[in-house]
Amino acid sequence: MTRINPGGTIGILGGGQLGRMLALAAADIGYRCHIYCPEENSPAFQVADQVTVASYTNEDALTEFARSVDVATYEFENVPAQTADIVSKNTLLRPGARALMVSQDRLVEKQFLADAGVKTAPYQAFHTAAELKAAFKEIGRPSVAKTRRFGYDGKGQHLVKSSKDLEKVLEVTGGAPSILEGFVNFDREISVIVARSASGDVAAYPVSENVHTNHILDVTTVPAKVSDMVEAKAKVMATKVANALEYVGVMAVEMFVSDAINEIIVNEIAPRVHNSGHWTMDGAATSQFEQHIRAICDLPLGDTNAQGVVRMKNLLGEDILDYEQYLADPKASFHHYGKSDPRPGRKMGHVTWVEPGE
Amino acid sequence: MTRINPGGTIGILGGGQLGRMLALAAADIGYRCHIYCPEENSPAFQVADQVTVASYTNEDALTEFARSVDVATYEFENVPAQTADIVSKNTLLRPGARALMVSQDRLVEKQFLADAGVKTAPYQAFHTAAELKAAFKEIGRPSVAKTRRFGYDGKGQHLVKSSKDLEKVLEVTGGAPSILEGFVNFDREISVIVARSASGDVAAYPVSENVHTNHILDVTTVPAKVSDMVEAKAKVMATKVANALEYVGVMAVEMFVSDAINEIIVNEIAPRVHNSGHWTMDGAATSQFEQHIRAICDLPLGDTNAQGVVRMKNLLGEDILDYEQYLADPKASFHHYGKSDPRPGRKMGHVTWVEPGE
Repeated sequence: MTRINPGGTIGILGGGQLGRMLALAAADIGYRCHIYCPEENSPAFQVADQVTVASYTNEDALTEFARSVDVATYEFENVPAQTADIVSKNTLLRPGARALMVSQDRLVEKQFLADAGVKTAPYQAFHTAAELKAAFKEIGRPSVAKTRRFGYDGKGQHLVKSSKDLEKVLEVTGGAPSILEGFVNFDREISVIVARSASGDVAAYPVSENVHTNHILDVTTVPAKVSDMVEAKAKVMATKVANALEYVGVMAVEMFVSDAINEIIVNEIAPRVHNSGHWTMDGAATSQFEQHIRAICDLPLGDTNAQGVVRMKNLLGEDILDYEQYLADPKASFHHYGKSDPRPGRKMGHVTWVEPGE
Repeated sequence: MTRINPGGTIGILGGGQLGRMLALAAADIGYRCHIYCPEENSPAFQVADQVTVASYTNEDALTEFARSVDVATYEFENVPAQTADIVSKNTLLRPGARALMVSQDRLVEKQFLADAGVKTAPYQAFHTAAELKAAFKEIGRPSVAKTRRFGYDGKGQHLVKSSKDLEKVLEVTGGAPSILEGFVNFDREISVIVARSASGDVAAYPVSENVHTNHILDVTTVPAKVSDMVEAKAKVMATKVANALEYVGVMAVEMFVSDAINEIIVNEIAPRVHNSGHWTMDGAATSQFEQHIRAICDLPLGDTNAQGVVRMKNLLGEDILDYEQYLADPKASFHHYGKSDPRPGRKMGHVTWVEPGE
């Protein structure tokens, strides 16, 4: 339960916008940040006290990095197990290696969620064409094939509407170990951003409702248009997940909701601050970024209430060039990640509107 | 009216907490910061993209710094004229040299304020003992002697209650050019944080009411307990001052108020973000720090409305060690400047409470 006092140094694996916003939040409450990232000119470098540019397999660099910080954390779930291992041998790693292990493999994740007592879609693992056929027989259609590892933003996924689609599945998965998941007929996608501190305190934010376009988050609104029962149940489920993992930090639990039957199914977990929690920067007393820092430093967790009706929109690629329109809107808060190349689909910034609640 | 787009680089002279909070706000809307400061380990260095450690008289270092940025600004009003000159020959300097010249000399400042059409305390310049005697004859008692230059937090000031006090005056002023000011019998101290953009747009924040202890700001509350007439008049006066200076950036205008007669007297101006505007970080849609960046980059100015009843308290010296109490208070927002040595009276952080307004 080691506490890291303000003035201490936090190490962050990953130098993208999440690492950047973590570093900004950490600085606001008095911490120095050391960012470790293989890419030169990473956005988080611009706001960090120290930076290391080295690969995630560079044992010497990782060791030196870990020894220079009081606690290490990460902004992405695909931190290699070996990297986490080297870091945690030389400093506190929060969240720990187990959160990475569970979230990096859809099969392990599903088994973990079942053990934690939360509902998921039916699934069946497969590797070979024969196993896929058997899985399809069990799960039925429609179903979705997903590689077990390294999938994000819809990559490595394929919808199976009929047995004809099975041929393409192995192409998309590249023959990697995968799962076939029963397609969930949901009304809306929600997520719960939940924090658990090193001392075991837990605080969940109000449920976020998320709309994706081309498998990338487009808009988050809070409160979500769900019943009070779903709102409460979703927060309980997220809390169960965080406790079952003995998690330390902020995590996101993504869920599907069927309105008519108030049913919630957990889709996946992300052991990090999450795009669907960006609204908290302007719409809650404590942002998810500060909350993560508080949790991993074992400080008291902050207030998670929404301060009105909140809407967050991602600015992808050249959307960022409309910055003047957002800066001129007195109700909008504009955020720019300091990336110079507005490639199509690249997350360049976001904008949040907060309106008084009812 | 050159605009600096997000992605550009902002140079900041001075590496204290004001430079640090400017850099954090600049990063949030996509700018890189280059901090120039003579002191190693300056708090702002921890969050900057680039830093230069060099004296304010190092022409080569200043030239290189200025050429590396798209616009330069400063966090303190005692930037030497020669420093400003070197920087402004090599990049945009906003606010410009005139704001420094006016605010660095109490005599020039008083004359400027009179020309701008705002009321100040009666005053008389003096240098020698004979001039002081003559000034005292004119201004009367009680009065306050103040050095024209380099005074802050009450330093270089002496209260004159009777002619006996005159002897000590020259000791306190060290024989430097000074002014004798008529003592203003005020009910409260207020300030207006006002922004003027490169395009000439002006936006004033609601009036801040300030309580000083030992000449150092202790608490700011918003709204100030002043009449609607004083609130409006104070904002008009601050706007007049900003326009008369053709100012670019955020500035503070400090004033004294006599309630019974709704009278306002301008005490002094600060051509920079100001401690009495720290409440805007949590209590307004746009912080004074982001507003300063918007103003000097010629972006649209942001919303300045207060989002409730706001109270800001400075944490001086070992006050900062009570951080847990503030972090545990769901209504408090805690800020720590990343300084390691809590010397008595040193500004280490601040905390803000925002309560719903009437």
